[in-house]
Amino acid sequence: MIPEKSRQKLHEVIYEADTPAGKFFDLALLVVIIISIVAVMLESVASIRLVYGKELAIAEWVITILFSIEYISRIIAVKKPLSYILSFYGIIDLLSTLPKYVDILIPGLSLSFLLSIRALRLLRVFRILKLVHFVGASNQLLIALKKSRAKIAVFLFAVIILCIILGTIMYMIEGPESGFTNIPVSIYWTIVTLTTVGFGDITPITPLGQFVSVIIMIMGYGIIAVPTGLVTAQFMQERNDVNNTQRCPNCNADHHKDNASYCYNCGYHLQKRRNDQ
Amino acid sequence: MIPEKSRQKLHEVIYEADTPAGKFFDLALLVVIIISIVAVMLESVASIRLVYGKELAIAEWVITILFSIEYISRIIAVKKPLSYILSFYGIIDLLSTLPKYVDILIPGLSLSFLLSIRALRLLRVFRILKLVHFVGASNQLLIALKKSRAKIAVFLFAVIILCIILGTIMYMIEGPESGFTNIPVSIYWTIVTLTTVGFGDITPITPLGQFVSVIIMIMGYGIIAVPTGLVTAQFMQERNDVNNTQRCPNCNADHHKDNASYCYNCGYHLQKRRNDQ
Amino acid sequence: MIPEKSRQKLHEVIYEADTPAGKFFDLALLVVIIISIVAVMLESVASIRLVYGKELAIAEWVITILFSIEYISRIIAVKKPLSYILSFYGIIDLLSTLPKYVDILIPGLSLSFLLSIRALRLLRVFRILKLVHFVGASNQLLIALKKSRAKIAVFLFAVIILCIILGTIMYMIEGPESGFTNIPVSIYWTIVTLTTVGFGDITPITPLGQFVSVIIMIMGYGIIAVPTGLVTAQFMQERNDVNNTQRCPNCNADHHKDNASYCYNCGYHLQKRRNDQ
Amino acid sequence: MIPEKSRQKLHEVIYEADTPAGKFFDLALLVVIIISIVAVMLESVASIRLVYGKELAIAEWVITILFSIEYISRIIAVKKPLSYILSFYGIIDLLSTLPKYVDILIPGLSLSFLLSIRALRLLRVFRILKLVHFVGASNQLLIALKKSRAKIAVFLFAVIILCIILGTIMYMIEGPESGFTNIPVSIYWTIVTLTTVGFGDITPITPLGQFVSVIIMIMGYGIIAVPTGLVTAQFMQERNDVNNTQRCPNCNADHHKDNASYCYNCGYHLQKRRNDQ
Repeated sequence: MIPEKSRQKLHEVIYEADTPAGKFFDLALLVVIIISIVAVMLESVASIRLVYGKELAIAEWVITILFSIEYISRIIAVKKPLSYILSFYGIIDLLSTLPKYVDILIPGLSLSFLLSIRALRLLRVFRILKLVHFVGASNQLLIALKKSRAKIAVFLFAVIILCIILGTIMYMIEGPESGFTNIPVSIYWTIVTLTTVGFGDITPITPLGQFVSVIIMIMGYGIIAVPTGLVTAQFMQERNDVNNTQRCPNCNADHHKDNASYCYNCGYHLQKRRNDQ
Repeated sequence: MIPEKSRQKLHEVIYEADTPAGKFFDLALLVVIIISIVAVMLESVASIRLVYGKELAIAEWVITILFSIEYISRIIAVKKPLSYILSFYGIIDLLSTLPKYVDILIPGLSLSFLLSIRALRLLRVFRILKLVHFVGASNQLLIALKKSRAKIAVFLFAVIILCIILGTIMYMIEGPESGFTNIPVSIYWTIVTLTTVGFGDITPITPLGQFVSVIIMIMGYGIIAVPTGLVTAQFMQERNDVNNTQRCPNCNADHHKDNASYCYNCGYHLQKRRNDQ
Repeated sequence: MIPEKSRQKLHEVIYEADTPAGKFFDLALLVVIIISIVAVMLESVASIRLVYGKELAIAEWVITILFSIEYISRIIAVKKPLSYILSFYGIIDLLSTLPKYVDILIPGLSLSFLLSIRALRLLRVFRILKLVHFVGASNQLLIALKKSRAKIAVFLFAVIILCIILGTIMYMIEGPESGFTNIPVSIYWTIVTLTTVGFGDITPITPLGQFVSVIIMIMGYGIIAVPTGLVTAQFMQERNDVNNTQRCPNCNADHHKDNASYCYNCGYHLQKRRNDQ
Repeated sequence: MIPEKSRQKLHEVIYEADTPAGKFFDLALLVVIIISIVAVMLESVASIRLVYGKELAIAEWVITILFSIEYISRIIAVKKPLSYILSFYGIIDLLSTLPKYVDILIPGLSLSFLLSIRALRLLRVFRILKLVHFVGASNQLLIALKKSRAKIAVFLFAVIILCIILGTIMYMIEGPESGFTNIPVSIYWTIVTLTTVGFGDITPITPLGQFVSVIIMIMGYGIIAVPTGLVTAQFMQERNDVNNTQRCPNCNADHHKDNASYCYNCGYHLQKRRNDQ
């Protein structure tokens, strides 16, 4: 389709951030993304739409076309287009423009607000700004969350069963007069209460209902300790694991400090394996 | 009552999940339980009951009869029926059908909503889907919670005494005009506030009342640290206990320290198994 | 005043719980305390006061006289009455009866509700039920809280300064129209928001006010991590300290396990110091 | 400008707290700061302003002049005035008086409420009361927060992107009828819900909207674990670092492991100083 050399040039500008052109492209992209999100938000405010509706519509279209050009360029610039198209960012990039085109083709629908999915494009900020330190931090977060996944799933499953039962009990106690119009609404209220959100759109009015809600609240107050405990324990485990990988070849002691040159146990000189990394 | 061979066959299907028949039974059961919970919920929604009331009533009865057959089969299939009947699941299985029958016998009562206890049957999902990993995780959760039981009980007892006293003080300050109609209601409000739920159905309006609520809120904000700290500390303790997988080859003591060279119990020199890893 | 022998007998009944008489006294006391708290609560409910007002008034008086007799007996039974009178429980015991008498002497005042201070008498439950395990747990809680005292004080001080400034900013942004009638009320609202209680009696309505509240909420969401982190870290320290007191007399290694007989480092036989305790 | 000797004298009184004069100055300053904050607050209460408006205005001016004199004295007393003027406290001290003067010069503006920035002057309390212990505690807090900065930033960034997307979804589901008048307001609501504040000024009324809010609440309930976990893990790290008070006598490396026998940096045999304790 296009000569290999221009493809490589394009790849350098779009996917890399080492050349001045690449840096400029990435920063410009970031600015356009932020503008596009703000535009979608402002368009939803009735008073602003009335006055600046036309300008916002034009801006929307300009941004959508820019994003479309960028999307096509990304496909062209990469050697294996499919791997980009099917990647996380590839799908988000597509969904950042598609709703606008669907809106013209099928006028009845109004998918424009789906464009707020563009917010996910902001995740690129980490790569663009070369915030390696932050990427490391976010990886540590993700690893810790991933490892506590099974426990968190069990915990959530138990909480949901609890909420179904407590919601039904509250429905039987309070009834439609207090706003507990049906069991799904009662379960909604139970979760609002258990998570300590407490909107107050529905509140118990019978003494028994208030007594049961007190129990639900205290449970919620205690239950919040469980995910916190899980994640904290996992974080600390990660920390220890990070300090943990080296062993003394002489006495086999482990848990050396990160910058240790000698074994703290036998005084043997530790080989600096990390030099090679 | 029934020949031993068919009993064993029945046991295999109902209680085990290794044969295709057993797997199919378990999955079918899971689906029926979820349908039955959804049906109970939908029946409580007035608009749905008006239109589909008849269909839901029939579905309810079909499910109840299916559950009854399952319950009787479980009693037949097991060698010692009483041990099943009196087990946790046995009681839940009974309570999942009984209220429906009581409703016909004593028409005045309306216990149908008790059927939401069926939600507890969902706990079988762990066994059915052979989620051993998840069962292990839930056991660790339960053990950690069990071990912090005494501390959590002391903590809750102190919180309740605190709420009684603070609730009375708020009743004296605010009085019935602000919605603090009596001491039990004030205690309800105090717990709503201390647990940071904050419905807003009752709120202080006098400056002094607002000042005391501010103190209650800050206390609640700090107090939440206590159960979280307890559970986290317990989780980490569990983790450490799990990590010490070594046992003394002489006296079989376990829970050795990570860097132990000698058994803390008998003084035997521990072989460094970790060399091989 | 009374012969030494009867004084000792009285002491045994009132202060100790080893003889049948002592046990009976303690349990009876517990029951009367709970009845008295319930009575104070019920009296505040208008509908109950209307019907059972007379009975409750009589019950109140009977209990107050019983508590007065108990208080005098406690003074008589103890060798050094003053040490009891000035102790924590001594003051609470006095305050549990005094307001009732003050009410007759000065009819204008209505201090009866102060009687809910009787709830503090329930703290005796730990001693009465000989829940040594629970007392140990509560001591650990108190020690951990005491040790993080300085950090928690610094934290609270910083939070209060923050709330004064944020509250003033919100007052300037929102003004009296949105319910932010003056700075103290705005500070009250800020604390309600920062602690994630969120009553909703006052809410921002201007876009700028909502923006600032969003910042306050996210700060509160993050700030809650600080006391939790402090208390958790302290709990874990305590746990380690408990395992920490012994040192090997041969190689001076510490952090031995609680039930260790031999040093995990050099195999030396540890002297069981704990036998003597 | 002024003789060196009086400058030194002045410095002793204003900046130091060892002489009786210095102590008196610091305490007097503290009292005036508290009075000034209370005065600003009271002036905003309409009912108090009506009655004591004049007195408060006078008090305000007296305090402002006192603070101005103090500010000028501080500049005179210090050798390098600029380093004070540009320091954190220097800027706060200026902002504590400036708005009052700006108010006379430009009568239209009403910046008086900016005076609540004086609350920051209270931070001096730590230095004044020589609460070294507290300063140490606050330093530990700050260090722990600083070290988790990168992770907390990543976390907040992800939460904000999440809120933009969830807020848009809620706007599309609920629409202006339920109070979700535009996307910014929906995002505001999402953050109110995710942080478990839950004002209740806007609440979902459609079943689908309630379902999505339930998901947001449970997410918020889980997400709160992340900053708590981060800060707790950091606190414990700090503690461990602090506990390793030993330094290598050969290379002066610190942060040794508790049970280290050899320096991890130079291999020198560490003398067991702990024997003497």
